[in-house]
Amino acid sequence: MTKLNENYLKLQSSYLFSTIAKKVAAYKQENPSAEIIRLGIGDVTLPLPSAVIEAMHKAVDEMAVSSSFKGYGPDYGYDFLRQKIVETDYLARGVQITEDEVFISDGAKSDVGNFQEIFDAKASVAITDPVYPVYLDTNVMAGRTGAFKKGKYSKIVYLPCTAKNNFIPLLPKKHVDLIYICSPNNPTGTCLNKEELSKWVEYALNNKSVILFDSAYEAFISEPDIPHSIFEIPGAEKVAVEFRSFSKTAGFTGTRCAYTVVPKALKVFDKEGGEHSLNSLWGRRQSTKFNGVPYIVQKGAEAVYSPEGQKQIKENIAYYMENAKIIREGLRSLGLKIFGGVNAPYIWIKLPKGVTSWDFFGKLLKEANVVGTPGAGFGPCGEGCFRLTAFGSRENTIKAVERIKQLKL
Amino acid sequence: MTKLNENYLKLQSSYLFSTIAKKVAAYKQENPSAEIIRLGIGDVTLPLPSAVIEAMHKAVDEMAVSSSFKGYGPDYGYDFLRQKIVETDYLARGVQITEDEVFISDGAKSDVGNFQEIFDAKASVAITDPVYPVYLDTNVMAGRTGAFKKGKYSKIVYLPCTAKNNFIPLLPKKHVDLIYICSPNNPTGTCLNKEELSKWVEYALNNKSVILFDSAYEAFISEPDIPHSIFEIPGAEKVAVEFRSFSKTAGFTGTRCAYTVVPKALKVFDKEGGEHSLNSLWGRRQSTKFNGVPYIVQKGAEAVYSPEGQKQIKENIAYYMENAKIIREGLRSLGLKIFGGVNAPYIWIKLPKGVTSWDFFGKLLKEANVVGTPGAGFGPCGEGCFRLTAFGSRENTIKAVERIKQLKL
Repeated sequence: MTKLNENYLKLQSSYLFSTIAKKVAAYKQENPSAEIIRLGIGDVTLPLPSAVIEAMHKAVDEMAVSSSFKGYGPDYGYDFLRQKIVETDYLARGVQITEDEVFISDGAKSDVGNFQEIFDAKASVAITDPVYPVYLDTNVMAGRTGAFKKGKYSKIVYLPCTAKNNFIPLLPKKHVDLIYICSPNNPTGTCLNKEELSKWVEYALNNKSVILFDSAYEAFISEPDIPHSIFEIPGAEKVAVEFRSFSKTAGFTGTRCAYTVVPKALKVFDKEGGEHSLNSLWGRRQSTKFNGVPYIVQKGAEAVYSPEGQKQIKENIAYYMENAKIIREGLRSLGLKIFGGVNAPYIWIKLPKGVTSWDFFGKLLKEANVVGTPGAGFGPCGEGCFRLTAFGSRENTIKAVERIKQLKL
Repeated sequence: MTKLNENYLKLQSSYLFSTIAKKVAAYKQENPSAEIIRLGIGDVTLPLPSAVIEAMHKAVDEMAVSSSFKGYGPDYGYDFLRQKIVETDYLARGVQITEDEVFISDGAKSDVGNFQEIFDAKASVAITDPVYPVYLDTNVMAGRTGAFKKGKYSKIVYLPCTAKNNFIPLLPKKHVDLIYICSPNNPTGTCLNKEELSKWVEYALNNKSVILFDSAYEAFISEPDIPHSIFEIPGAEKVAVEFRSFSKTAGFTGTRCAYTVVPKALKVFDKEGGEHSLNSLWGRRQSTKFNGVPYIVQKGAEAVYSPEGQKQIKENIAYYMENAKIIREGLRSLGLKIFGGVNAPYIWIKLPKGVTSWDFFGKLLKEANVVGTPGAGFGPCGEGCFRLTAFGSRENTIKAVERIKQLKL
């Protein structure tokens, strides 16, 4: 009798965005004429930059001819892409990262989900509350949590983020092995500034912890004091892994390319206290379970770093951030308290007292035909909050804000 | 102090093909003028079929315009591709599979490597010896084995495949939960016929085991009695998962697309004996840790099923199988015993008595400048054998065989 991994039975229903998709589909079926505007899932809508399109056409042509055809690529990505990443995203910011510390992958979700595999099954885990569900669910699957009770899994260290602390987590009171930090944050749109992030690096150095730093939204940072990379903080290379993605930066949600930086200075320990390189461990994981990103896609990602590519992605980001401003200002005019939307494409709404986030989801869907994401879907502290994204078209964003303004809140 | 997953320390050096690549690179550096022919790693060399190229160009153009741009795709793959797979690879062969049993992914290596996650950490595992290393290494990483001694991990049930049994494994003598079967086989190139495969399905039905059936090479089958899918065997839908790939079938090793069929009739059990759908469990795993395959690539894979696509991939496979014949016949003329190469792109050479497979690897590299894969890299029973692949160009294949014929064996 073959048994399942019973940790899966602890998971709470289905993945948040699948649930939302099903609810929207059901509403759409009952109301086929409803003109639904989706500001729920953080999915881009602008087409790929023309520099990327050109590069991918060229790469497709290369695949058509024996002399330039590409079979299996290097396990960790092509050097042409790893070089551009190192030069543009790190060296140009004064951060020393080498090419063999960069692992190209098909998505930050995959990497951030798979990364926990290389740590001890009993490692203690801290996450913020609210949180991007992948950090939590993948640790549930791996057995690092107990049962789910009153909205929380036992054994997990939750770091509450609320309007009272401006959604900036406090350091854990006890020792934790693995700490997930997302800045700019999904879902709250808030950021850790240099001083705040330095405290986390110091904590990790003192506790020999590992910070899993998700900076998938760094391209949206507009304020000078917000670090784009955790490696801007001295000492972080000894305690942090950084996850980045082309999904939001360059419109790659349907094209799939990301990367993870694992510094060679980062060590983890065996039972006897012997040191092991996390970079080597992740390399072994990836060469055993992953076969790389399509050549065509890596050529597309390389083009993001060309002068035209850089100009085009900045224009797209500016477009989305103008949407963020429209949402932020429109909702503020209703007297709602709003977080995020300045250094991140997410707008985090504090709902009026007594309104639950799933109630608001239903109201918005039915009365305004606008889809957002209920804060409670990201954790108990997300209750009473609601996420909208800036990734819609300008027209739809304006229309959605106008419709919301008509509601009785 | 953050601890690593100590199971990683049990792994034997690096992944086989990384080791070979390093040895070849070292030789090449010392002998820069050597004209090396690579018949080691199973990587295709013919360019992508023109039907695929055309479809990908179209898809790239769609990504350039808002109205046809694609963001996140459906978690389990686009319906247009799942439909074609069901129709062509299953219904047309009389096998009843539905679209929601097909999960599109970036590679059979990823799927076959990740799939073990959804089973109990203590599930017992049977693999053939020799074996594709991914089946074994991913279970080592998951802690399903003990230490490595005398070429084997304790707790793993090894099913010896040798020249004596024509490389066809016998049923395990005791109960096993998970059974990895690869047919047509990598590395031996041998196949299970209908009668033999039926015995495995019967065993699994009697033992409530799960067969993880890797049929990545089914497109190379030329003989009528060899099943293309395990689901041709009655009852298999209750006990088997099937892994398929476009890598070898359509030249996608550098383009990355595969699929896994998880029948809804397949149940696994919790401690209390309660039934759970493996299809749902895999769905939950994928929606949590994976974000789908690039739209462009899925459109390319769809084109494999067009009439032109089908014609083109058949021509490419015939080309490789002619190479296989050249290798088979050439080496047989030297008096060597040869397996495989009839229903598979792999030729498995029984070496003369006393010659080890790594010795032969070194001899071939240095004296013939031909790269193959030592049988011992696939397990202890692979010792004394050597794998060549049919994926070279015709010219290189002929040249390699001529060079080998000059060697003193």
